Amino acid sequence: QTSVSIYGIVDAGLVRESGGPDGNVTGLGGGVASGSRLGFRGKEDLGGGLSANFLLENGFNSDNGTLGQGGLLFGRQMYVGLSGNFGAVRMGRQYSPYYLALRDIADPFAAGLAGRAGNVMATNTRVNNMINYQTPKFGGFFADLAYGLGEIAGDAQKSRTIGAAIGYEQGPAAIKLAHHQLNNATATDRTKNTLLAARYKFSLAEGSIGYAVNKGLGAADSRDFILGVSVPFGPNRLLGSYIRHDDRTAMNRDAHQWAIGYFYGLSKRTDLYVAYARIGNDNGADFKVGNATDTGTGDKAFNLGVRHTF
Amino acid sequence: QTSVSIYGIVDAGLVRESGGPDGNVTGLGGGVASGSRLGFRGKEDLGGGLSANFLLENGFNSDNGTLGQGGLLFGRQMYVGLSGNFGAVRMGRQYSPYYLALRDIADPFAAGLAGRAGNVMATNTRVNNMINYQTPKFGGFFADLAYGLGEIAGDAQKSRTIGAAIGYEQGPAAIKLAHHQLNNATATDRTKNTLLAARYKFSLAEGSIGYAVNKGLGAADSRDFILGVSVPFGPNRLLGSYIRHDDRTAMNRDAHQWAIGYFYGLSKRTDLYVAYARIGNDNGADFKVGNATDTGTGDKAFNLGVRHTF
Amino acid sequence: QTSVSIYGIVDAGLVRESGGPDGNVTGLGGGVASGSRLGFRGKEDLGGGLSANFLLENGFNSDNGTLGQGGLLFGRQMYVGLSGNFGAVRMGRQYSPYYLALRDIADPFAAGLAGRAGNVMATNTRVNNMINYQTPKFGGFFADLAYGLGEIAGDAQKSRTIGAAIGYEQGPAAIKLAHHQLNNATATDRTKNTLLAARYKFSLAEGSIGYAVNKGLGAADSRDFILGVSVPFGPNRLLGSYIRHDDRTAMNRDAHQWAIGYFYGLSKRTDLYVAYARIGNDNGADFKVGNATDTGTGDKAFNLGVRHTF
Repeated sequence: QTSVSIYGIVDAGLVRESGGPDGNVTGLGGGVASGSRLGFRGKEDLGGGLSANFLLENGFNSDNGTLGQGGLLFGRQMYVGLSGNFGAVRMGRQYSPYYLALRDIADPFAAGLAGRAGNVMATNTRVNNMINYQTPKFGGFFADLAYGLGEIAGDAQKSRTIGAAIGYEQGPAAIKLAHHQLNNATATDRTKNTLLAARYKFSLAEGSIGYAVNKGLGAADSRDFILGVSVPFGPNRLLGSYIRHDDRTAMNRDAHQWAIGYFYGLSKRTDLYVAYARIGNDNGADFKVGNATDTGTGDKAFNLGVRHTF
Repeated sequence: QTSVSIYGIVDAGLVRESGGPDGNVTGLGGGVASGSRLGFRGKEDLGGGLSANFLLENGFNSDNGTLGQGGLLFGRQMYVGLSGNFGAVRMGRQYSPYYLALRDIADPFAAGLAGRAGNVMATNTRVNNMINYQTPKFGGFFADLAYGLGEIAGDAQKSRTIGAAIGYEQGPAAIKLAHHQLNNATATDRTKNTLLAARYKFSLAEGSIGYAVNKGLGAADSRDFILGVSVPFGPNRLLGSYIRHDDRTAMNRDAHQWAIGYFYGLSKRTDLYVAYARIGNDNGADFKVGNATDTGTGDKAFNLGVRHTF
Repeated sequence: QTSVSIYGIVDAGLVRESGGPDGNVTGLGGGVASGSRLGFRGKEDLGGGLSANFLLENGFNSDNGTLGQGGLLFGRQMYVGLSGNFGAVRMGRQYSPYYLALRDIADPFAAGLAGRAGNVMATNTRVNNMINYQTPKFGGFFADLAYGLGEIAGDAQKSRTIGAAIGYEQGPAAIKLAHHQLNNATATDRTKNTLLAARYKFSLAEGSIGYAVNKGLGAADSRDFILGVSVPFGPNRLLGSYIRHDDRTAMNRDAHQWAIGYFYGLSKRTDLYVAYARIGNDNGADFKVGNATDTGTGDKAFNLGVRHTF
């Protein structure tokens, strides 16, 4: 029992979605600020600075008890790896370097609540069959490399994923340049997302900014700009963000999102949250306001709930 | 690790079902006296009498390893909540107030073994997207309110569940009046179940009684009457019950069930069980003898197994 | 928390399969040397030498987070039982006596890596609805009996499994004779596998040998011969095996497999592995080189990875 520890989050709240084609929906969200999860992790010291580690993180929907991520057992994160002076190597189902830059640097909502950046921006959240190498930090600088095997017979390029990020994190500043590319199943086309994200902790608030270049399948082509702010009030925190999605195709389906949120800390492990976001869709764009586990039904949503970490 | 504890039940036993259309079936039941389960729960003291708590309870079938409740991960019970002097508020997938009255007060078989009341009575076991409020006890009196969001766009009444119970529990006496109503997906009809259940602990045995009024979809209309007894013999316990189901529709599909069971306690956590129940179906009624996880195939069943709690 | 302990294995590695009809496949194997798993187990002392015990072992694929064993929650092993001076009785989903003889005695690859005996030999790994009785050891001798209920109405012989093994294990020697038979769903035919397996620990290496007689559905009829060796080098271990599959039907689809593997021990709980196996298929035989969780795509495979036990 000494070699494994259990952790998790249970989050549930009211979600009011409006502006959808079938009318308003009021539901209980089973993971609104953060996806509900139950994880098991451990670390073994192998001597000489080397250690083995693993992490198995299940995602579930706390409103109805279903498995998350479309029915996976450890759908959130799962890896086994070795780490040492050389950095860390991990194999499994893991977050892409692109997603970590979006979640941890650019998006003050950290991919949760109505205001999550993923409502309008590409997320590229997880990669299966992924081999990851993270360098150690050199004076604040580091790199994060990812390779996701396509596992299609005859051609290793089919369905292959490549990801990379370089970054700098020191004191109040953090900056990351991340790239993600995924080949389609015939290796005849690919999606490519590149994000530059930066965050700075001022004395009263934290500001973040991000810019993404997205080349999708076919002629898909867009840019995203995100501006975020996070203001602490003791154990509480006010969040805001603005995202501008610029569609560069002939359809010109632009969109923008305004979002505001507030965490009221009952303790370090438990908080109440309230959030609101609305999207303006142009020329038939169809972005929806979701949250950490829900893709949304309309262009506006309100959240009110509780998140408990253990 | 201090913030989460693990608990569960593994139950397995021989189940012999007879009287079904395809002949007798002898199987290994994977949760006969109690559904097999593995749970994780925790509680955090937030100060001022307030606490946060969560419970994640998986159900599984211990005969073949499948997920229980039709493939849910935490299909038995799952919630996050806050409790304090004001009572307790919980959100998630939870037991209905009606079911708790049936299981804990009226049915000496506690919804398990061949004798479970649910063979002939409505159970309304669990509700998704449920917000629950439980009052504190006032001199033995308490109330339990439930609201299950339908989550259908455009009309909050579609598929909505409302449940409520009021009760009194003091010393040897317990009594509960519980109601459950579930709208259909178009909110044009609903099922309604109301149960009055009482239990009294006499010096040598415990007696229970219950009466339910059931209005189903369309013209469905029935009454249930249940009488139960539980006699302790040191660590062992003898159970018996009689249920009369009175169909008030023109088809008059009445039924009754006799059941007997015995728990032999190997310890406080482990017992052996044996049980037998038979149903008499009138006018083409088709009630079957199941158990805690099996809906049954015939009108008679015999159980013999072991239940281990951890 | 004192009554349950958590254990598991996370294994992941590169798997290069070649010789398949669609070309080579390079993938991340999510359980190559051993199937990845997360288990919960406990034991309760009931006094008088009697104890109750349970084991719930989930299998998952560490490359993509899916549930193993085709979507089961506790698909690897799951039982509740009692043990004492009389031996042990267990009920649940369990390993067949035949499989344990193959894995633990005959196959130096212990049913894992490219070299696993199951590539060409019958495995009969697990049985649902299984009641198992294991005798105590009498001077090194023991027996292991299994009965898997078919659970088909009207005829207990349909889909029924019967298994048995007798063995001797003392000092450096182990020998087992195991039998497995499974009726088809109409009880009109059955598969029967009988395996004699022996292992001896010499001073420098361990040698194993096995011979199996297989009578399948219809006219299926074959013999398997396996020869294995395991050579320890401190914390490391070199493995090798040769298997000859002799098809006794008119099609004469014989095959043979050569395999070699190496475990490099980083600690008692963590090792790196490398393995290679190739199969020679005659007369249209179509055996494939898989590993602990993969059935393979071609007649050759190479493995390189890490296995961490907790």
